[in-house]
Amino acid sequence: VAKRLEKFKTTIFTQMSMLAIKHGAINLGQGFPNFDGPDFVKEAAIQAIKDGKNQYARGYGVPDFNNAIAARFKKDTGLLIDPEKEVTVTSGCTEAIAATMLGLIDPGDEVILFAPFYDSYEATLSMAGAKVKCITLRPPDFAVPIDELKSTISKNTRAILINTPHNPTGKMFTREELNTIASLCIENDVLVFTDEVYDKLAFEMDHISMASLPGMYERTVTMNSLGKTFSLTGWKIGWAIAPPHLTWGVRQAHSFLTFATSTPMQYAATVALQAPDSYFAELKTDYMAKKAILVQGLKDVGFKVFPSSGTYFVVVDHTRFGLDNDIAFCEYLIKEVGVVAIPTSVFYLNPEDGKNLVRFTFCKDEETLRSAVERMKEKL
Amino acid sequence: VAKRLEKFKTTIFTQMSMLAIKHGAINLGQGFPNFDGPDFVKEAAIQAIKDGKNQYARGYGVPDFNNAIAARFKKDTGLLIDPEKEVTVTSGCTEAIAATMLGLIDPGDEVILFAPFYDSYEATLSMAGAKVKCITLRPPDFAVPIDELKSTISKNTRAILINTPHNPTGKMFTREELNTIASLCIENDVLVFTDEVYDKLAFEMDHISMASLPGMYERTVTMNSLGKTFSLTGWKIGWAIAPPHLTWGVRQAHSFLTFATSTPMQYAATVALQAPDSYFAELKTDYMAKKAILVQGLKDVGFKVFPSSGTYFVVVDHTRFGLDNDIAFCEYLIKEVGVVAIPTSVFYLNPEDGKNLVRFTFCKDEETLRSAVERMKEKL
Ligand SMILES: CSCCC(=O)C(=O)O
Ligand SMILES: CSCCC(=O)C(=O)O
Repeated sequence: VAKRLEKFKTTIFTQMSMLAIKHGAINLGQGFPNFDGPDFVKEAAIQAIKDGKNQYARGYGVPDFNNAIAARFKKDTGLLIDPEKEVTVTSGCTEAIAATMLGLIDPGDEVILFAPFYDSYEATLSMAGAKVKCITLRPPDFAVPIDELKSTISKNTRAILINTPHNPTGKMFTREELNTIASLCIENDVLVFTDEVYDKLAFEMDHISMASLPGMYERTVTMNSLGKTFSLTGWKIGWAIAPPHLTWGVRQAHSFLTFATSTPMQYAATVALQAPDSYFAELKTDYMAKKAILVQGLKDVGFKVFPSSGTYFVVVDHTRFGLDNDIAFCEYLIKEVGVVAIPTSVFYLNPEDGKNLVRFTFCKDEETLRSAVERMKEKL
Repeated sequence: VAKRLEKFKTTIFTQMSMLAIKHGAINLGQGFPNFDGPDFVKEAAIQAIKDGKNQYARGYGVPDFNNAIAARFKKDTGLLIDPEKEVTVTSGCTEAIAATMLGLIDPGDEVILFAPFYDSYEATLSMAGAKVKCITLRPPDFAVPIDELKSTISKNTRAILINTPHNPTGKMFTREELNTIASLCIENDVLVFTDEVYDKLAFEMDHISMASLPGMYERTVTMNSLGKTFSLTGWKIGWAIAPPHLTWGVRQAHSFLTFATSTPMQYAATVALQAPDSYFAELKTDYMAKKAILVQGLKDVGFKVFPSSGTYFVVVDHTRFGLDNDIAFCEYLIKEVGVVAIPTSVFYLNPEDGKNLVRFTFCKDEETLRSAVERMKEKL
């Protein structure tokens, strides 16, 4: 294995999902729904396949889909963008992240991450040869420590990576935090890469796109995907929105990472993004009910549950159950209780920082959530 | 844009396909069929979507598909491999190439390419920080210059990249060439990365997989895909086969480039790979008829046509038509004749080497091939 990847392990999501299968445990680990995506989107995919939309898509996206992404972005942020020059379709947001790092970051550039962070951020920065600077968000509210951020930015800082709503904590960056980060970025000529795949799962406050802040669009790459919003995580359709000079770098990397993304699924995704407002409203209502069940359940089990404003995740402190750390706790939970959670220490540069915390997902049907809670009540 | 990608332009395939649309030219450029994939594969995709196979696949592939890939490899090469430890499903062969380079090549490693080469090889090696050494295959037969290869291998050589059947020339590496390369690799402890996406389009001789040569499996990454064999280039399903120690590197990079590949399409691809022998025989017969039409037509037009043994490409010398170089010729061909070909100079480290050669594809229905020939007869 190349040195750039030596320190990384099999991703925790794969590890945990495989353990879930092996032990027949209820999987509240990896974030994929155990219910299906909406029929109108599935029908559109079937139609595209039948219609023979089965050859290479244009590298940066089929025109209809680029248009639909731009239209959705306009609706969400008010920003008018050029679908031909500012949108790149990728094979999931994971590829958008990789293409952004490899397309825009040079060896030695410093990039600031907020821990805990989705594991691919660090790995793709390592591929790009970046220097990772890490700022830890701490419970209970995972607020951005502004002074630490200020002192971390240097003349070598090329970009700050933001993820809001935030996986794994469910934190949403407040307008105040985003404004402060924005002015620091403008002042220091720093880019923002923002992963907003959970933007439609914003429960406790409105989602704010970094790109919509004054002066920020021109220095921001906004990444999103179909999977979470349409319960179709397996389709692997994502995109990156950025001004032309940044899009150029993203597209160059994308050209050589995957060249193009599944054509029929792009046609289906086009239909998805044109869903009526009621679709998004219902999604939110459904998830709020699921969230209520899981959060109350975890409290009843005895966990200290940290407030989650968005995403389909919630983080708890497991320490009162007496296990050494998050990994030991998750192992116990799988083997003795029959429930899978995700240990969070893997999301920190310093694993110690996450040793008290584990993440549960509520992207499961209500009965599954209730059964998981029952198992924990009984056996923890 | 990051320095690693500065020298690369918009891929020639995208450029040419966009010009084809703009000028209403017949597109014999980018290698995608203008006919549809087989119904039994499309039906399988539709069924998978209906059956709710729409959430994240296992990162390295859905078990059924890994099994089908191993079974097909056994059938094709006689080699028995472990689908769990030696197969990685990727988003097209392009991703398999990127994952192989980023997962196995360290900065400063030397990797040998044979020019002309598919453009993503050089770009992903640049991402990996490799030193590219290039050996030019020259017409008419594009034979491997063994002495030059011997003197190019050094103690820093980490890998040789092979592509057989070869894009753009249609050359197939002979058993003798492969044997020689194999012994040099074993002698010098060098890996082979072999792109065999056109293995089922072998017309003039049998395809030989490098991995099947004695002592080679353990040092070979074999890359392949669904697109060319099943006329479904837009589905972006590929894979890499390698012994466990190499698979580890490929999988690590893959985890962070795309994480996983489209779930429903993997189920469809499983069905595809189990196609009866007759499917592959018919594909070949169909393509031989297309090839005959195009090759004869190009000769009638007056091109010097170089023999192509496999792939759906054929390379010609355009110089008797008096244009300065391949790019000027292709521009003339699009604008004045209404036919798109691919200039080959972009596939060389030294563009001069390709300036006399352009590539045509015959992955189009017979009528399209005939019309393209007619246009050229009339206007060239
Ligand atoms: C590839 S897993 C992607 C993110 C997610 O779903 C998770 O954090 O569980
Ligand atoms: C992404 S284009 C892939 C290869 C091909 O089809 C071509 O060489 O034309």
